[in-house]
Amino acid sequence: MRRLLSKSDPPDLEFQPLVVIEFAKHAKEETREWLVKKIMDKKKDGGSQLLIKPLVISNDEEFIYIVGGSAKRLLLGAEAVGLVKECIDGSMKPFIYNNRKEYKDWTEDGDDFLSMAECQYIIKYELDNLRAQDEKNIPGYPNSKLYPGKSIFRRLQTSGIMIQVFPLHDKEELKRLRHQWYLRIKLAFQPIDQIQHYFGDTLGLYFAFLEYFTMALIPMALIGIPYYFFAWEDYDKYVIFATFNLVWSTVILEVWKRLSSVMTYRWGSLIMKRQFEEPRPGFHGVLGINPVTGRKEPIYSSFKRQLRIYLVSVPFVCVCLYLASYVMMIYFDLEHWALAYHQEQQSTFSSLILYVPSIIYAVVIEIMNRIYKIAAELLTSWENHRLESSYQNHLVLKVLVFNIVNCFSSLFYIAFVMCDMKLLRQSLATLLITSQILNQFVEALLPYWLQKRSSRKIKKKVKSLNVDTDYTLLEQIHLEKDMDTYLGTFDDYLELFLLFGYVSLFSCVYPLAAIFAVLNNLTEMYSDALKMCRVYKRPFSQPSANIGVWMLAFETMGIIAVVTNCTLLGMSSQVSGIFEDSKRDLILTVAAIEHALLALKFILAFVIPDKPYDIQVKLDRLEFESLEALKKNQQMKLSSESLTDDDDAMNS
Amino acid sequence: MRRLLSKSDPPDLEFQPLVVIEFAKHAKEETREWLVKKIMDKKKDGGSQLLIKPLVISNDEEFIYIVGGSAKRLLLGAEAVGLVKECIDGSMKPFIYNNRKEYKDWTEDGDDFLSMAECQYIIKYELDNLRAQDEKNIPGYPNSKLYPGKSIFRRLQTSGIMIQVFPLHDKEELKRLRHQWYLRIKLAFQPIDQIQHYFGDTLGLYFAFLEYFTMALIPMALIGIPYYFFAWEDYDKYVIFATFNLVWSTVILEVWKRLSSVMTYRWGSLIMKRQFEEPRPGFHGVLGINPVTGRKEPIYSSFKRQLRIYLVSVPFVCVCLYLASYVMMIYFDLEHWALAYHQEQQSTFSSLILYVPSIIYAVVIEIMNRIYKIAAELLTSWENHRLESSYQNHLVLKVLVFNIVNCFSSLFYIAFVMCDMKLLRQSLATLLITSQILNQFVEALLPYWLQKRSSRKIKKKVKSLNVDTDYTLLEQIHLEKDMDTYLGTFDDYLELFLLFGYVSLFSCVYPLAAIFAVLNNLTEMYSDALKMCRVYKRPFSQPSANIGVWMLAFETMGIIAVVTNCTLLGMSSQVSGIFEDSKRDLILTVAAIEHALLALKFILAFVIPDKPYDIQVKLDRLEFESLEALKKNQQMKLSSESLTDDDDAMNS
Repeated sequence: MRRLLSKSDPPDLEFQPLVVIEFAKHAKEETREWLVKKIMDKKKDGGSQLLIKPLVISNDEEFIYIVGGSAKRLLLGAEAVGLVKECIDGSMKPFIYNNRKEYKDWTEDGDDFLSMAECQYIIKYELDNLRAQDEKNIPGYPNSKLYPGKSIFRRLQTSGIMIQVFPLHDKEELKRLRHQWYLRIKLAFQPIDQIQHYFGDTLGLYFAFLEYFTMALIPMALIGIPYYFFAWEDYDKYVIFATFNLVWSTVILEVWKRLSSVMTYRWGSLIMKRQFEEPRPGFHGVLGINPVTGRKEPIYSSFKRQLRIYLVSVPFVCVCLYLASYVMMIYFDLEHWALAYHQEQQSTFSSLILYVPSIIYAVVIEIMNRIYKIAAELLTSWENHRLESSYQNHLVLKVLVFNIVNCFSSLFYIAFVMCDMKLLRQSLATLLITSQILNQFVEALLPYWLQKRSSRKIKKKVKSLNVDTDYTLLEQIHLEKDMDTYLGTFDDYLELFLLFGYVSLFSCVYPLAAIFAVLNNLTEMYSDALKMCRVYKRPFSQPSANIGVWMLAFETMGIIAVVTNCTLLGMSSQVSGIFEDSKRDLILTVAAIEHALLALKFILAFVIPDKPYDIQVKLDRLEFESLEALKKNQQMKLSSESLTDDDDAMNS
Repeated sequence: MRRLLSKSDPPDLEFQPLVVIEFAKHAKEETREWLVKKIMDKKKDGGSQLLIKPLVISNDEEFIYIVGGSAKRLLLGAEAVGLVKECIDGSMKPFIYNNRKEYKDWTEDGDDFLSMAECQYIIKYELDNLRAQDEKNIPGYPNSKLYPGKSIFRRLQTSGIMIQVFPLHDKEELKRLRHQWYLRIKLAFQPIDQIQHYFGDTLGLYFAFLEYFTMALIPMALIGIPYYFFAWEDYDKYVIFATFNLVWSTVILEVWKRLSSVMTYRWGSLIMKRQFEEPRPGFHGVLGINPVTGRKEPIYSSFKRQLRIYLVSVPFVCVCLYLASYVMMIYFDLEHWALAYHQEQQSTFSSLILYVPSIIYAVVIEIMNRIYKIAAELLTSWENHRLESSYQNHLVLKVLVFNIVNCFSSLFYIAFVMCDMKLLRQSLATLLITSQILNQFVEALLPYWLQKRSSRKIKKKVKSLNVDTDYTLLEQIHLEKDMDTYLGTFDDYLELFLLFGYVSLFSCVYPLAAIFAVLNNLTEMYSDALKMCRVYKRPFSQPSANIGVWMLAFETMGIIAVVTNCTLLGMSSQVSGIFEDSKRDLILTVAAIEHALLALKFILAFVIPDKPYDIQVKLDRLEFESLEALKKNQQMKLSSESLTDDDDAMNS
C-alpha cells in the first residue's frame, strides 16, 4: 500500500490515511477525545481497534481527523463484512483470514490484497457499528442521548457534532483511471473493472449499465434511420419496427441480467451475504424493544406511518400530478398561440417561434421534476421509515410516478386525445433534445466549472498556511472536504429510465428517438465520468449484486410500451385503411396482437435464464460445498457419539 | 413409540417396523445379504446404521424386509435432514441433538418426539443416500453397474431387483384420524394439523388448500344465486359481478400465500433448508464428472435434451392439440345433429337428446386427458431430465397446456366464434357436472371398491399361512404392499385448477358455476380423505414450504380470466346497446377497463405482503440470530488473534 505520511508523525502513527472525519467548529475537546479513544480501543472493550490521528493546522479552528487501520486489522475486517475474493483455483469465496494463502492475489505481506475502496468500506462499516455501551449521552452534550446498542456515529451526525465522514481519493490511481476512462479520445469500452475497483460495485454497475444500454440502442437506432429518411409510412414496415422494438427491449433486459450476474460474480458481490439492516440515521421514535433483534431501539408504530402515507403523501402526490397536468394545459395554450402567430406572419422568425413552447415546457418540466424531488425526499423522510431500503422504495415510487406523468402526459395527450402524429413527433424531439442538453449542463458541466473555481481559491489558501505536516495531504483533504457529496445513482438511473421511455413508448411514430438516445448516452458517459472524478467527493464503495428496483422500473416501462405502440399502430391511418369496413375487426385485431406481444414478452423473460450456465454452476458448487461441509460435520458427530448407544442396541 | 414386535424376535432386534422393502422373486440371496449388511453397517463404514430384519413367511417365495432405527439414530437422522422443531420459547429451530432439551416436545427418553411420518422420512432419506463405494456392480448381478457415489437403492429399483420401498400405516393413529376427518358427519374444518402429522406437509397443504379454496368460492356462489334466479341481465350488475370475481380471485390467492406461510411455519417446513438435489432415478447417460459436485455421475448433454424437447415433444404436443380441436369439431357436428333431431321431433326424449353430445364430449375429454397424461409422462421421462424438479416442471407444463386446450377450447369457440351465450351456459354446466361425477367415481369410489374386494382375498390368504410371527403385522404388510401407490398431488391439484378455470373464465355468463364448484369440493374432500386412508399405500411424507408451481398456474388462470370476462362483457347485447352509435368507443372502453383491472390485480398482488407480520418477524429473528452468531465468532477471533499484531503497531 502506498503510505501518505505526515512528515512530523512519530513512527507508531504511520498509516495510510483512508477516511477523513470532520467535526463541527463547536465540537468540544471532551467529545473528540472520547471518540478517538473509542476508535482506538480494543474490539473486546467495545472499540473498533482502528488507527486515528488529528490533522494539525495552525491558524484554523477546524477539527479534522484521519482514520486508517493496520493491515491485519483491515484483513480481519474484510472477513467480518463478508468480502468475497477469488481463490487460486478460480472460484470465488468469502475471505477467511486463516485461509488467506488460498486466495489468488495474496502476497507474502498481504499488501495490495484489499483495494483502497474496500479498505474504506471496511472502515465505514466498523465506524457505523461503533455502538454505545453504558454511556447515557455523548460526553459534553447532555442532550444528545445514547442507549446501549445505538450507533455512535449516527448520533454524532444527526446531532450536528460531526459534519461528515468521507473517504479520500487515491490521486495516483485516479489519474490512471481518468486517463483510461475519458482523457484518451478513443472508440473503446469503458474500463468497468477499474471503475468498480476504484468506486465500488454500485457505480461499476451503473457505468456498465449505461454502456450496455447505449450498445443495445444502436440496433434500434440503425433500423430507425431508413424509416425516417424514406418516410416508410406503410403498415407492414411499422408493425415490423414496433414488434422488433418490443421484443428487443425484453431481450436486452434479460441479457443484462445475465451480464450483470457475470460481472458481480467476478466482483464477488453476487455471493456476498447481505448484512442485517440497521435502522436508518433519521429514524426516530419512542425507545422500545425491537421484536426481531431484542435490542433497545426507537419504535414507531407502523399504523401511524400508514396514516401519514395515505392521508398526507398520497394526496400530496395527487395534487402535484394535477398541477403537472395544469402546466401541460398551459403549454397547449402556448402551442396554440404560437401556431396562430405563425399562420398570421408566415416568416422565418415565426416558424422558429413554433418550437419555443416545447422548449419552455421542457425547461419547466426539468424544474418541476427537481422541485418535486426535494419535496418527495422531505415527505418520505417525514414518513419515518425504519429501514433505508424501505425509505428508498417509497421515494423511488413517488418520484417515478410524478416523473412519468410530468414527462409523458403531454405526449400521451397529443397521441391519444388530439391524435396529431405530426405534433407528437415534434414535441417528442424537442422534449428529448432539450432535456438532454439541460441535464448534461446542470449535472456535470456547471458543477465542474464551480468546482474548478473554488479549488483554485482553496489551493491559494492552503499555500498561505504555515504548517509542517505533509503539504500534499493537507491540500488534498482541504480540496476534497469542500467538494459536493455524490448522493447516489438515483438521478442517473432516472435519466436513463426517462430516456428509455422516450425511445420505447412512441417508437413506432418517431424511430429517430433511438439515435438521439445513443448520442445522449455517449456524451453522458463522458460527463458522468468527469463528474465522478473531478466534481464530487469520492463516495464510499457499496457492494451490490444488481441494479435492484430499476430493473423492475425498466420492465414495467417495457410493458406500457407494448400497450402504447399497439394503440398507436391501431390508430394510424394506414392500418385503419385495411379494416375500412369494420372498426370492430380493427380493434379486436389490435387487442389480439397486443395480448400476443405481452404473452411473448412474459414467455421470453421466463425462458431466458437470469444467470449464464457457468455462473449458475459456480453458485451451485458453492452451495453444494457448504451443504457437504455441514453433512461431514454431522457424520463426524454420528460416528463419535452414537456408537455406544447403537452398539448396545445391536450387540446386547 | 408404539412397538409392533414379532413374537419370536430375539430381544436385540426389537424395533418399531417403519418401512417395508419388497424384493423381486428372483432376487438372489447374495444381493439381499449384501444390502442388509450395508443398511446395518456403521455410518463411518459407508452404511446407514439402521435396523433391518426379514419378515419370515414359510410357504411363499416373497422376500420382504422391515426397516427401523434406534431412537437415538433417528434423532441424529432428524438433525441430518434438517428437521425443524418448536423450542420451549415458542420459536421454530432446526433440531440439533446436543440441544435436544431446548425443544418443546422433548421428554426424558425422546420417545414420541418424532412422529412416525418423520421417522419414515428420515429412513427414506438415509436409504436413498446409501451410496456405492468400491463396488463395481450389484453383487449377484454383473450387469447392474455401480460407481462410487451412485445411490444403491435407485440402482436396485431401476434394475428391477427391488420392487418397492414403502412406509407402514399406523393403524391406531389412522383410526383416530379417520374418525376426526370423515367418519363423523359434521360441519367443521378438517383436522389439517393431524393430516400433516400423519401424511406430511405436501398432503397437509393440499387438503388445507382444498378447504380454503372451497371457503373462498362460497361468497362467489352466494352472489351468483340471485343473478341466476332473477336473470339479472343488465350491464351494471354483470360488470359488478365480474369485477368482484376478478378482484376476489386475486385476493384469495394472496391471502392463501399468507395462510400457507403460517401453516408451514408451524410445521417447520417454511424454515427447513432445502437439500441438494440428486439426479432422478430414471436419469441415464455416459459416466462423467458433474461440474457442481465433482462426483462421478451419468452426464447427458443439455443440447441433446433441447433437441428432444424442440424436435419431438413440442411437435407431439402440437399434434395432440390439433387432435383435441378435431374432436371438438366432431362434438359440434353432434350438437348440430341433436338440435336438428329435436326440432324435428319436439318430444321429451328429443329434448333429453340435446344434452347427450355434451355428456359424451365430457367423457371423451376425460379419457383424452388421461391418455395424454400417460404419453406426457413417457415423453418427459424420455427427455431425460437430470433433476426431479425439472422433470416435474416439464411434465406440468405439457399437461397443463393440453388440459386447458382440451377442456376449454369448445367453450372459447362457443363464446368468441359462435357468440352463442345460451349454448355456452349449457355446455359449461354439462362439462362441469359430468367431469365432476366422473372424477369422483374414477379417483376414489372405483379404487375403494376394488381395494375392498382384494383385501378380503388377502385376509383369507394370510389366515391360511401357518406362521409364528406377529399375525397382525404380517396381515398389515400383505394388505398394504398390494395397495395402489399414491403418485402425488398432481392429479388433485389439476382437478382444482380446471375447476377454477370453469368458475372464473366465464363467470359473468354463468354465475352458478361457483355453486357447483363448492358442492364438488365438499364431496371431493370426503372422497380424497377416503382415498388417502383406505385405497392407497401410505405415501412417504415430503417437506414442502408451499404449493409450488400451482400457485403460478392459478395466478395465470386469473389473468386469462380478466381477458375473457372483459371480452364477454363487451360482446353482450346490453353493453353493445349502450355504445350503439360507436363500436370503436365500445371496444376502447372495454380495453381500458381490462387494462385497469389487470393493473389492479398486479398492484393488489404487490401491496399484500406474502407473509403475515408476525411470521416475517420470526423469520427475521432467525436470520438475525444466525448472523449474530457468525459475528460473535469473528469477534472472538479478532480479540484473541490480532492483539499481538496491533499491539506491535501501536506500541513499538
